[in-house]
Amino acid sequence: MGYRYELRLSGDVGHGLILIGKILAEAAAIYDGLNAIQTQSYGEESRGEANRSEVIISDEDIVFPKVERPDLLLCLSQVAHDRYIDQLKSDGFLIIDSQRVLDFSDDHEKLFSFPFFQTALDEFKDESMASSIALGVVADLLGVVSPRAVHLALRARIPKGSEEMNEKALKRGYQMAKEKLSSTMMNPEL
Amino acid sequence: MGYRYELRLSGDVGHGLILIGKILAEAAAIYDGLNAIQTQSYGEESRGEANRSEVIISDEDIVFPKVERPDLLLCLSQVAHDRYIDQLKSDGFLIIDSQRVLDFSDDHEKLFSFPFFQTALDEFKDESMASSIALGVVADLLGVVSPRAVHLALRARIPKGSEEMNEKALKRGYQMAKEKLSSTMMNPEL
Repeated sequence: MGYRYELRLSGDVGHGLILIGKILAEAAAIYDGLNAIQTQSYGEESRGEANRSEVIISDEDIVFPKVERPDLLLCLSQVAHDRYIDQLKSDGFLIIDSQRVLDFSDDHEKLFSFPFFQTALDEFKDESMASSIALGVVADLLGVVSPRAVHLALRARIPKGSEEMNEKALKRGYQMAKEKLSSTMMNPEL
Repeated sequence: MGYRYELRLSGDVGHGLILIGKILAEAAAIYDGLNAIQTQSYGEESRGEANRSEVIISDEDIVFPKVERPDLLLCLSQVAHDRYIDQLKSDGFLIIDSQRVLDFSDDHEKLFSFPFFQTALDEFKDESMASSIALGVVADLLGVVSPRAVHLALRARIPKGSEEMNEKALKRGYQMAKEKLSSTMMNPEL
């Protein structure tokens, strides 16, 4: 009955992917008592290329702490999609920004696209909210971390002054997910 | 940082409230490692009156196992509303069926109504799905139990043959909640 999910969150430098990876891992580990590991790659950032953050969440010990074949790949940019798509599991979830990733793999049945940046701009007048919206979508799909934990972890990590907007963006993501996704989809035992 | 939520699920006999109370408590305690107590009153059932099921969920030990002033009251019938409304906390959540509870207290700001029975009938051709839809709404609002846990607990409790429909109804409830509620609403620290 144990589970282990490997998530890769990718996009451009400045998209806030490292931050949302940390938030998700801390939600799982600190507030929900699960096991989680978060890693990020810095090497690529310095070359101004795709940027990624990885999270492993499990209800058992995480013996192998490396993401090789993610169960979920979030792509906020075309470059990130092109760079990481080949490693996604064949039955893995591909979550893309509907306006920034136009040329995407059709090998993945579990493909879902959302207008993260457009929603951030339209509803928050701030494109940087795209990552918090995406966090809500990913957390909802994942289904193993409680919303309370994700909110507490976000509040603890977001700099003072912008927590409120980020929390609204997170809620918006949860809501957006419900239109297309279900929190049982990633849980094959359900 | 600890929390304790007292929920009262009420309606008529046959509405499945005892079952959804058990499912929610088992989701919290068995699958998510929280503390939970579920109680039901049988005395009233035999008089054919309002029927209730109560759940307490906490991340700490539950020292006092009785629900006196619920944080949330679900009413699937007018009789249940009339009987239990006075005990709801003044800032508690009142969740009612929009077609079965027409005369409701206006003392409660946190009032939300949903067409549980109508949705069950329209989408599942089965009114008994109303309680599983309501479970999704309550679990989503509560926000401290993971969707995975609620689904696993439901699957373990629902008799073979109708799990699939009940799981769809549960998902429908989660989805319905997102239109009006947020899983941070019940968590005052958020």
